[in-house]
Parts: sequence; structure tokens; C-alpha cells
Amino acid sequence: MTEHERPARTRRRGEELLTAIRAAVLAEVAETGLGRLTMEGIAKRAGTAKTSLYRRWSSPQEVLLDAIHAEHPQETVSPGSDDLRGDLIRALRQLVDWMRSPSAEAAGSIVAERVRHPELARALYERVFEPRGGRFTLTVLRHYAEQGRIDPRLITPVVADIGEALVFKYAMDTHQVPDDAKLAEIVDQAVLPAVGIGPDRPESAAKP
Amino acid sequence: MTEHERPARTRRRGEELLTAIRAAVLAEVAETGLGRLTMEGIAKRAGTAKTSLYRRWSSPQEVLLDAIHAEHPQETVSPGSDDLRGDLIRALRQLVDWMRSPSAEAAGSIVAERVRHPELARALYERVFEPRGGRFTLTVLRHYAEQGRIDPRLITPVVADIGEALVFKYAMDTHQVPDDAKLAEIVDQAVLPAVGIGPDRPESAAKP
Repeated sequence: MTEHERPARTRRRGEELLTAIRAAVLAEVAETGLGRLTMEGIAKRAGTAKTSLYRRWSSPQEVLLDAIHAEHPQETVSPGSDDLRGDLIRALRQLVDWMRSPSAEAAGSIVAERVRHPELARALYERVFEPRGGRFTLTVLRHYAEQGRIDPRLITPVVADIGEALVFKYAMDTHQVPDDAKLAEIVDQAVLPAVGIGPDRPESAAKP
Repeated sequence: MTEHERPARTRRRGEELLTAIRAAVLAEVAETGLGRLTMEGIAKRAGTAKTSLYRRWSSPQEVLLDAIHAEHPQETVSPGSDDLRGDLIRALRQLVDWMRSPSAEAAGSIVAERVRHPELARALYERVFEPRGGRFTLTVLRHYAEQGRIDPRLITPVVADIGEALVFKYAMDTHQVPDDAKLAEIVDQAVLPAVGIGPDRPESAAKP
């Protein structure tokens, strides 16, 4: 490894240092748990000084939120996109990819320990999840509502939550993240019907 | 309180003792956690002897599974029932009522700590959840499929999971259990559409 590839620790600046600190806080919280997260522990793991953390954040919880925020995927749809089903599956795949990350593990700990850390849990929803789209699939659903493919009145909080809810439930029950085939089932059998598309019903199916 | 109402501890037999032991193991696991659950702790809390536990169970985990099993609600539909929507809401209300119980808290710990207790987690699903109907709403959906109101091919694992998934997701996000109005939304906006009923679409809604 040359010096160009890896500058001396003391000289790291800007983005590079920030990336190291974010990785450090996520590794630190995974090891020590939320209750024992300290500026000292983060600084040591990142190979920097506590003072450089305090320059930017007021508490270890703020460092953690920053790291989770920075790594949180933003669901997007290209403006001309015309593939509702494919875009929904892609949105849920973003969620699944995120679920495999240290950032998701840290977010999961915050939610699991919300009784002990209510402010932190609130900040996670208000400052990370909501600004990043609120729910996976919601950005896609809104895009197709604007295109007239979905009645916007059908995009309720419950409906916007179907994809995430089924992905989390599957992970809870099986301790695995859903693969693409399972994501397609979730989209075809649950999300699309809720916005008035499908399920494909054979003629024999009785009406209510 | 007369002696008739509350027999001396040493004389408790059968159902009464069993009930005390089940309450004891649930209280014990809530306090000590799964890792520190012992026959001794359960016996002490139930005011009985360890030997009387070993007569029936081989380990504290077996006592715990028995307690969770005994308190797990069984979803039922009266044979002549003809209220799909109402029965679905009732099924989810059973789930919500259960979620408030010490039994659900214990089951939640097992799922959360499945990495440390994989055998216990497997037993929870195989010996409690599956025999008790598998998923809330599934018994109801099957009932109406038999009546010809729902195409049985639409009752997939994903669809059977929609209600539970949304209830758990709501509880995770809000740290509250859904009330009846929210359960009705879940049924109307997510479960029923997935079995080909609704959502109510205004004429203006575009088709795919």
C-alpha cells in the first residue's frame, strides 16, 4: 500500500475522516450497545481526537444519527420511469440491501431500546426515516399516482407500509432477508392489489 | 379470604399449580431474561419445589414454551359466520390482545434472541405458532375460501401474513398497539384487496 492510497492518520481531512468516524460509531455501537456509546470510544476506534468529534457533534448519539442518516438509502424513481412493478421491487430491494448494513443494525437497536432512549428513537424517525422518504415504496407509489396510474387516495399510511411490513415480518420469522422472488411476491400479492391492481383473479373467484 | 378460596400453597394441585407455574415462568423470564432462566428461579417464584417442575418438564425452556403455548390465542370462526370483514378485524384484535400479554413479551424475547437460542426459537414456531393457526387471519381467510367467497389460490403465505405484518410494523413504529380503527384500515386497505375484494376505487382511477 502506497502513501498515496493511505495518507497518514493525522492528516485525514474532510470526507475521509467523516467516513472513518461514521464507520467507527457503527462498529462501536454494535460492540458496546447504545447505553455505553462514548465520544472517547468512537474517537479511539476512528483513530482521531475527541476534540475533532466535538467540533461537529455534541454527543455520541448525534454522531450515531449522522452515520445512520448518511448511509440511509434514498428511494428514487427516474422521472420518465414507466415500470410500476419493477420500481416497487427495486424500492424493496433497496430496503433489503440496507437491512444488511451496520447502519440498519444500529437503527434496529435504537428502535428495540426506545424505552431507554426515547429521544434518540424520535430523532431516528424524524431526522432520518421521514426525510429519506418515510417508507420504502412510497416514493414510487407517489410517482405513479402523479402519472395517473394509481388513485392517490389509495396511498394511505397503511398501504405505504405494506411492503416494509412484509419485508420486516419475513426477516423476523425466518431470520433471513427476502430474496428477489419473495420481493416480487410481496409486490404482486400485497402492494399492487392495495392500489387497485390485481390480484389476478380467475373467473371462478366469487365476488364479495 | 377463606381457606376454600385460597388453599395452602403446599396443597395446590393440578390446574391451579400449573397456572401458578406458568405465571411464574413468564414473570421470571421478564425479569431475568432468557439466558438466566432456571428451574430454581421458576420454582421459587411459583412457591413450589423444583422436583414438581422436573416431574413435568425437562428444562426451564420447556416450562416457558408450555406457558406461551397455554396462553396463545386460537383463532376461530363460528361455522355459520358470514362476516368476512368483521371476522378479520376480530382475528387481528386477538393478536393485539395477545401482544399486550406477558406471554407475547416472552415470545418476543425468544425471537429477538434467536441467535443465542436457535432451538428455542424453532420450537416456538413449530410447537406454538404453527399449531395455533400459523398466522392470525389465516383461519378466517380459509373459512371464507371454503364458502366460495375467496379464491383459495389467493391465500398465499404472503397474503396470510399481511395483517400480522402491518400490526407488528405499527407497533414497532409507534410503540403502541393498533386500535380498532387502525385494524379496520389494515383489513380494508390491505388484507381484503389482496384477496380480490376492493379497494373501493372511484371511477376516475386509472387501470394499469
